[in-house]
Formats: sequence, structure tokens, C-alpha cells
Amino acid sequence: MPETRHFAEDLDLLKDRLLWMGGLVQKRVADGVNALVAGDTSKLHELIDSDDVLNKLQLEIDDTCFKLLALQQPVASDLRLIVSAIKISADLERVGDLAINIAEAAEPYLTYRPVKALIDLPRMGEIAQQMLASALEAFLTNNATAAKSVLAADDRLDALKEQVFRELLTYMLGNPETVPPAVELIFISRHLERIGDHATNIAEDVIFITEARDVRHSRRK
Amino acid sequence: MPETRHFAEDLDLLKDRLLWMGGLVQKRVADGVNALVAGDTSKLHELIDSDDVLNKLQLEIDDTCFKLLALQQPVASDLRLIVSAIKISADLERVGDLAINIAEAAEPYLTYRPVKALIDLPRMGEIAQQMLASALEAFLTNNATAAKSVLAADDRLDALKEQVFRELLTYMLGNPETVPPAVELIFISRHLERIGDHATNIAEDVIFITEARDVRHSRRK
Repeated sequence: MPETRHFAEDLDLLKDRLLWMGGLVQKRVADGVNALVAGDTSKLHELIDSDDVLNKLQLEIDDTCFKLLALQQPVASDLRLIVSAIKISADLERVGDLAINIAEAAEPYLTYRPVKALIDLPRMGEIAQQMLASALEAFLTNNATAAKSVLAADDRLDALKEQVFRELLTYMLGNPETVPPAVELIFISRHLERIGDHATNIAEDVIFITEARDVRHSRRK
Repeated sequence: MPETRHFAEDLDLLKDRLLWMGGLVQKRVADGVNALVAGDTSKLHELIDSDDVLNKLQLEIDDTCFKLLALQQPVASDLRLIVSAIKISADLERVGDLAINIAEAAEPYLTYRPVKALIDLPRMGEIAQQMLASALEAFLTNNATAAKSVLAADDRLDALKEQVFRELLTYMLGNPETVPPAVELIFISRHLERIGDHATNIAEDVIFITEARDVRHSRRK
């Protein structure tokens, strides 16, 4: 059945494309946080001016998915995989935008005297990146258990966001000079939290695909 | 052809369901902003504790869409409409979450002495609601021109967000007492901006559906 073989290859290519997009997006998040910590404004400008490769990748992935839906008319878990790919590419594209938002807040931050040593924000950045990596790995391997670990990490990210907020509020109340830079750091913590939300969306899609497969399998027994 | 007639009816029911969900979501945004302006904490609590009807609606709409995709195997603009419905229900569900986020920021705000008369935030709320209404109306009527007006409104919303931020920063620098309430207002302005982003996503989906239809029509000539 060459049709089926081609279809399986098409699905593998689609997964590869999403993983590649995910890798680019993770790198942008890492670049944003690292440039903030290092005070590297030229890296921030590079990030803010970065071309729309993610946008193009999203359109390309969507186009592939629509062609597969129209020509192969998949059902059950294949159908769910392809529709989820459309949703995942949209989530990844928005994470790319959030990496730019981080750079846009880091740029004015670096023009002020530092409020404090940056410890929690890099931790948030690492958790957010790890969540993206785990969500994509779970997608690749249809692993619902790995996907559920992403949801647990999101709680840690939310708790860190609250901790960052309370600490920076204390600085602002004590010294008005810290208000403009502290506000930018609060924004960055919220951008990182939203990156975690997008990783969570991807993980939920994986659980949805995997549970659909389980349902289909149990029906076949 | 009863199959085709049923399919057309199914699509109409799907559109009705999305519009109903959109109406609920718009009401939540209006309730959040109105309760902030009126200082109505019991309304805010009601909103924060509101049940997961939007979540259930999203699952129901998704389920309908997957059944239509699997059983009817639609192509061209019908395929795009159904996949867009899945994306739109996700956007609406997140707008519902943002309405709760607004209430969660309004609640602590109301425990402080008011920073200033609230003029720009209600305006932002009205623009965001109008964007949602226009995007859904454009979806219902396949009107790409109406959808494009949503994108223009998003620029006005972004400009207001910047204006609110600059004004509140001035208050915070002048009087540390205003920092905690002003920060909550800044968060609310950002939640409203994100509601506008979701309306923009919906409008972009409409443009996508409509342009696909145009392409299909031009091919038939």
C-alpha cells in the first residue's frame, strides 16, 4: 500500500518540521534571557529585528496539514495529530513573539541601574525552555506521562512569577528609582509565564492525541 | 442530497455555537471592566468563581468539529471553516480566562486608594469587546473587510496600552503609595491588550477562510 507508506512518511516529515520550529523557538527564548543577564544589547537588537522565519514555518506547516487533511482524509488519531500540529505551530509562533517581547523589555531595563542580581528570571527561563522541550518530546513519542510532567512544571513557573512580583514590589515601595527597571522585570517574568502556558497547551494537545489513540485501541479489542 | 443538506445544517449549528460562546465571553469581559469601575467586589468574586461553562463549550465545539472532519471529510473552504472553528473556540476560551485575570487584578486594586479616574481602561475594554464582536460577525458573514477592521482596532488598543503605562509610571515615580494599585492597573491594561490579540487571531482566521474561498472560486472560472 504505497499510499499508506507515503502518508506515514508525510506525518514523520510534519513532526520533524514542528520539532525544528520548536528548536528555533527555544533558542530565541534562551537568547533573550541570556542577553538580559549578560547585558548584551546588540544581541537584544538582533532578536528584536529577527526575520519572520517562524511565521513562514507556521504557514508552511499549516499548508502541509491542510493538504494532508484534504487529500488523505485521515481519521482517529491521525486526524487528531494533524489538527494538533496546526495548533502547536500557532503556539510556537507566539512563543517566538514572546521571546521578542522579552528582548523589548530587557532593552530599557539595561539602561537603568540594576535593581538586583537576576536569579529567579534565569530559573524561570530554564523551566520555560525545559517545558517546551518536554512538550515537543512528548509530542514526538506520543508520551502522555511526559506531557503531564509539563503541567506540573507550569505550577512551579507560576509560583516563581508570584515570588518575583512580591520581591520587586518591595524594592519599588522602598526606592522609587527602582520602579522603571523593576516594572520591566515584572513584564519579563509574565512573558516567561506565558511561554509556560503555551508549552502547557502543547502538552494538553499531546494528552488529547494519546488518549484518542487509547480510545481507538480499546474499541478494536 | 440529504447528506449535503445535513452537512450545511451542521455547519450552521457550529457557527451558532461559536457565536453563543463569543457572546458569553464578551459579557465576561464587560462584567470584569464594569465591576472594576463600579468597585463591585461581589461581582468580581462571582466572575473569579464562575464555573467552567466556557471550557465545556470549547470541548463540545472541538468534538463537533472532529466528528465533522472524520465523517464528512470536507475539503476547501468547509475544511478551513471547521479547523478555524477549533482555533476560534480555543481563542474564546482564553479570552474567558483573561476576563478572570482582569477580575483577579481588580480585586486587590479596589483595596487601595484609587490612583486616578479610570477612563482609558474602560475605553480599552470597549475596544476589545467591539473587536471580539466584529471578528465573530466577520466569521458569521465571511466578511474579510470587516475582519481587516479588527486588525486596525488592535493598533488603537496597543497605543492606549502604552499611554496607560506611561501615565501610571509617572504616578508611581511621584508617589510610592500608588505603586501597588498602579501595577494592578497596568496588568489589567495588558490583559485587555491580549483580548485584542485573540480577537485579531479570530479575524486572521476569517481572512484565511475567505481567501481560501476566493481561491477556490477563481479556480472554478
